[in-house]
Amino acid sequence: MRATTIHAPGDIRFEDVADPRIEKPTDAIVKVVAGCICGSDLWPYRGENDVTAGATIGHECVGVVEEVGSEVSATRVGDFVIVPFCHSDNTCAHCRAGVQSACVNLGMTQSGQGEYARVTQADGSLVATDGMPDDHLVPSLLALTDVMATGWHAAVAAGVQPGHTVVVVGDGAVGLSGVLAASQMGAERVIAMSRHEPRQEIARAFGATDVVAERGKEGEARIADLTDGVGADAVLECVGTDGAMRTAFTVARPGSTVGFVGVPHGVELPVRRMFQKNVGLAGGMAPVRRYLPDLLDRVLSGAIDPGRVFDLTLPMAESAEGYRAMDERRAIKVLLRP
Amino acid sequence: MRATTIHAPGDIRFEDVADPRIEKPTDAIVKVVAGCICGSDLWPYRGENDVTAGATIGHECVGVVEEVGSEVSATRVGDFVIVPFCHSDNTCAHCRAGVQSACVNLGMTQSGQGEYARVTQADGSLVATDGMPDDHLVPSLLALTDVMATGWHAAVAAGVQPGHTVVVVGDGAVGLSGVLAASQMGAERVIAMSRHEPRQEIARAFGATDVVAERGKEGEARIADLTDGVGADAVLECVGTDGAMRTAFTVARPGSTVGFVGVPHGVELPVRRMFQKNVGLAGGMAPVRRYLPDLLDRVLSGAIDPGRVFDLTLPMAESAEGYRAMDERRAIKVLLRP
Repeated sequence: MRATTIHAPGDIRFEDVADPRIEKPTDAIVKVVAGCICGSDLWPYRGENDVTAGATIGHECVGVVEEVGSEVSATRVGDFVIVPFCHSDNTCAHCRAGVQSACVNLGMTQSGQGEYARVTQADGSLVATDGMPDDHLVPSLLALTDVMATGWHAAVAAGVQPGHTVVVVGDGAVGLSGVLAASQMGAERVIAMSRHEPRQEIARAFGATDVVAERGKEGEARIADLTDGVGADAVLECVGTDGAMRTAFTVARPGSTVGFVGVPHGVELPVRRMFQKNVGLAGGMAPVRRYLPDLLDRVLSGAIDPGRVFDLTLPMAESAEGYRAMDERRAIKVLLRP
Repeated sequence: MRATTIHAPGDIRFEDVADPRIEKPTDAIVKVVAGCICGSDLWPYRGENDVTAGATIGHECVGVVEEVGSEVSATRVGDFVIVPFCHSDNTCAHCRAGVQSACVNLGMTQSGQGEYARVTQADGSLVATDGMPDDHLVPSLLALTDVMATGWHAAVAAGVQPGHTVVVVGDGAVGLSGVLAASQMGAERVIAMSRHEPRQEIARAFGATDVVAERGKEGEARIADLTDGVGADAVLECVGTDGAMRTAFTVARPGSTVGFVGVPHGVELPVRRMFQKNVGLAGGMAPVRRYLPDLLDRVLSGAIDPGRVFDLTLPMAESAEGYRAMDERRAIKVLLRP
């Protein structure tokens, strides 16, 4: 098959690779209908993470089941499925506790920007739609495989409740999804920190009541003003950098929780400040599978339209251009079609 | 008056100092009936914190109200009162949210190991008993001013629920109080990490179902065994060192929370591990006042006897010996009588 690969920082190719195949009886092979590029794919692209030269890249996709292993029973060939970026058996103690991202049989989509992807733990991971979905729904279904569920997880981890004032740090696709999640959970006020006009627009469409364009100390001062000096009831940290984390702890009111879902890079948690302010931290890699049934209902009912975060669609063969567009912030999130 | 002072690491004196006096109309002066030495007092004693030479030390006491400021109305001269180590107005936004330790008018007891102590925000802070308590209750009432409420806060922050398996890291007075708190909250299994036989005994009396004497990797392995490799549902970190914190995160199951109440010293939080495991951190300086009414009821009804953590009582004039005994771990916690 052909798939997107990374050879070195900045070196993305779309080329022939070995077809994924059933390796374990719990596997399934999915023919990709749509994949996309994740903010976390930019870490190796920018040389912040190690790169295995020639490895496939991309952990988000939806598609049609092509083949299943001998122990797969719930998933059928021909099903249109949402593939959570992390695969889980959905039966172990961690899965039963709702932390599928810590499953004892954890797997991850490896070629979501290619023609086919292998899903380990197919029965525990995949959620099928009832028949083939309308094409216009594909972006929103694709968003459920990672960003929307990740933004949702940030809001759950931060303990967002109806009536809350919520601050979302980060205006990438995850941050925007966090705005949508907080809004769906009944937050009265959702303050999006965003400098970029097109992202501000989506934030407002997703339910942001306020937008703070300033960053760092200025942004923190603006939020102090907006919250009468008290701080936010819940904060979603959707970036993963030290600066974003510091802002999150600064704007959080005492007793609140920072929900974090950005893969931490160079973050030193301010433990003394956390102690003095009684501000907690919760979150991590999102247990996508846990939220999928509910989020799927919300997409199908039209309650949410998380696919709006895709502002550029390219043929998969042009995935390198997709990376450039996201790296240069010309695009929020890029959808790839085979 | 005479009070305990610190002049340098290891240099504790009991000497004449200026009488505390009403400085603001919201103040009260309490004649100390009993004070005590806190584990956190050992930080300056050991030179880990800066010392202001000649400053009074001691933030835990109970006593009788001697004098009140002109704006004090709920507190009356002659009341026997429990003095939370942190004083709060109990009316600001943070207090109303249950985080009295972040009160905008925060104060702290300064001479709890002396004959008199000034309480700022008397009405918001002090909780009076109904008449003079029996003398045998004094140790347990004194424990409510800090350690018992702090252990309780650790359990609240960690989200202890009925049926949980809880690990308590630290067998100081706070850790033991954490065991008692978890047990009161209905934890099915409370695993106390303690090497010291007298502390193990109190831990068991407070409700520990298991005691793990090993530390570090060995202790962590023992807890993995005890929890079938899953980990604890909630972990109370009651020490404040990096090693204790690492153990806490290691034994916590994915999706759980480490409740931390030990003032962090040299702690680097393992943010990547927290992310991968989805283990949160919550807690900080305990909002004692929030828990006082409930804890007072529990003491008066005989449900809890947190005064058991005092295993040495000395005249206040011998406070220096009290510090030595705690520093050398000859005593768990020292009660001082004027």
